[in-house]
Amino acid sequence: MNDALFLIPVGVSARHVHLSAIHVELLFGKGYQLQVYKHLSQPGQYAAKETVMLTGPKGTIDKARILGPNRPATQVEVSLTDAYCLGVSPPIRESGNLGGSSPITIIGPKGSIYLQEGLIIASRHIHMSEEDAVQFQVHEGDFVNVISRFERPIIFNEVKIRVSSQYCLEFHIDTDEANAARLKSGDQVLLLKNGSI
Amino acid sequence: MNDALFLIPVGVSARHVHLSAIHVELLFGKGYQLQVYKHLSQPGQYAAKETVMLTGPKGTIDKARILGPNRPATQVEVSLTDAYCLGVSPPIRESGNLGGSSPITIIGPKGSIYLQEGLIIASRHIHMSEEDAVQFQVHEGDFVNVISRFERPIIFNEVKIRVSSQYCLEFHIDTDEANAARLKSGDQVLLLKNGSI
Repeated sequence: MNDALFLIPVGVSARHVHLSAIHVELLFGKGYQLQVYKHLSQPGQYAAKETVMLTGPKGTIDKARILGPNRPATQVEVSLTDAYCLGVSPPIRESGNLGGSSPITIIGPKGSIYLQEGLIIASRHIHMSEEDAVQFQVHEGDFVNVISRFERPIIFNEVKIRVSSQYCLEFHIDTDEANAARLKSGDQVLLLKNGSI
Repeated sequence: MNDALFLIPVGVSARHVHLSAIHVELLFGKGYQLQVYKHLSQPGQYAAKETVMLTGPKGTIDKARILGPNRPATQVEVSLTDAYCLGVSPPIRESGNLGGSSPITIIGPKGSIYLQEGLIIASRHIHMSEEDAVQFQVHEGDFVNVISRFERPIIFNEVKIRVSSQYCLEFHIDTDEANAARLKSGDQVLLLKNGSI
């Protein structure tokens, strides 16, 4: 194993919603197209101007940002703090792995939808390009450690590597993980390969 | 150094308020005494039946639990998630170290108070008795690592040891830290001394 340390920029994901084209129309009206509010660091991804309300058995979150472009299946990602507020207990999952995930109600200005499943807590991961993977000597699906040396020093173990030519280098965590380490987007953490700890 | 591993039960602290006797009267009325709702694991400490509202420049938290007994100085402990909701940026501090901490408004049924300082995010720590300290070969003020091996495995670095005959063994973290590691009160983590990592 190569024990070299590599710097990775942090991307903190607040609660957000990915919508299918059909669900965009159900929530915002026939023929509606999401508007770009801000481009995200991952190529082609954007935060939309639109937000929706999320409701669960115990509470409501007023504004959850929609991320575009549309996806084949609607997916809602919240933190565990959000999940307690909503009164649900979603699994910690990779994006797109929705089988048996939690139900959620999504309310838009023109309609609302109830999903039997689709609510998850996103598992932390590192996006990187194929060139980064070669440089860091890791592969798609590897697990590594991430060292954060800010005000609340933490080592995140078992962080999954995700490699694609579409990805730019970023350690994705949710707001609970960011707050536990007092990390914010753009901060830099260290990748440490397994076997080194 | 002794590299032995020791099990420590977790205690998750939700947002809470410690009040001085004068502030109890200002918030709840002259001569008012806090009622015991539930005894806590630390000897003599209890959650009171009473809650207060906390407000900051950007938001409000409806119900913050009061912990008794009264203290010489009023102190409010929130998570970083709570702090964003209130619109304040409190320092991460040990309990009782309030100089230069954040302002906060506390609202009770009979009055409200504005503190120029008193709002902190509690820094994580391990309470233990003198007998535990001897067994674990650590001392008051030492820093150790804490290994959590639940669904979101994490190592918390630089965790302070606090030793007193009044303390019972517990690793105290806030809700952000608990959620980042998917820990709950009563779960067990491992103490690992510095030099071992």
